[in-house]
Amino acid sequence: MPRVVVDVMLKPEILDPQGQAVANALPRLGVTDVSSVRIGRRIEIEFAGQPDLDRAREIADKLLANPVIEDFSITVVDAADVQESHP
Amino acid sequence: MPRVVVDVMLKPEILDPQGQAVANALPRLGVTDVSSVRIGRRIEIEFAGQPDLDRAREIADKLLANPVIEDFSITVVDAADVQESHP
Repeated sequence: MPRVVVDVMLKPEILDPQGQAVANALPRLGVTDVSSVRIGRRIEIEFAGQPDLDRAREIADKLLANPVIEDFSITVVDAADVQESHP
Repeated sequence: MPRVVVDVMLKPEILDPQGQAVANALPRLGVTDVSSVRIGRRIEIEFAGQPDLDRAREIADKLLANPVIEDFSITVVDAADVQESHP
């Protein structure tokens, strides 16, 4: 069953303290070649029938994203490649 | 400049109260054909040089995901399609 994935990220001009904290922690792990980290949300919506992009856009706009500070993008993915689980 | 995107989602067997809350709010928006909503994190890592998948995997494993309750997947995306900003 295909799913609709909504990716919500802070707009580029909005500071992301959470991402900044991760970026600042990286040198302690010995990682020095990362220039920026941004953290957002990924929402997977499963529809009972056919996935409905317009519906998903409406949900994202009204419930999932704050359009003042966040951008979102919507994609349909096959359930099979939604999460190649990682050991 | 390509970026590495880490998608962190709760394992399927772990309850997701935040996603559940969104799913429960949908009928009030008139949306009745959604069967499940799961909310996770999307992290965009920008490298100073060439994106390094192994490095990204190490970062995800040590800093970004809790392997007990979360799965993560790693992909490289072109910066151009990272965020088709949405009106």
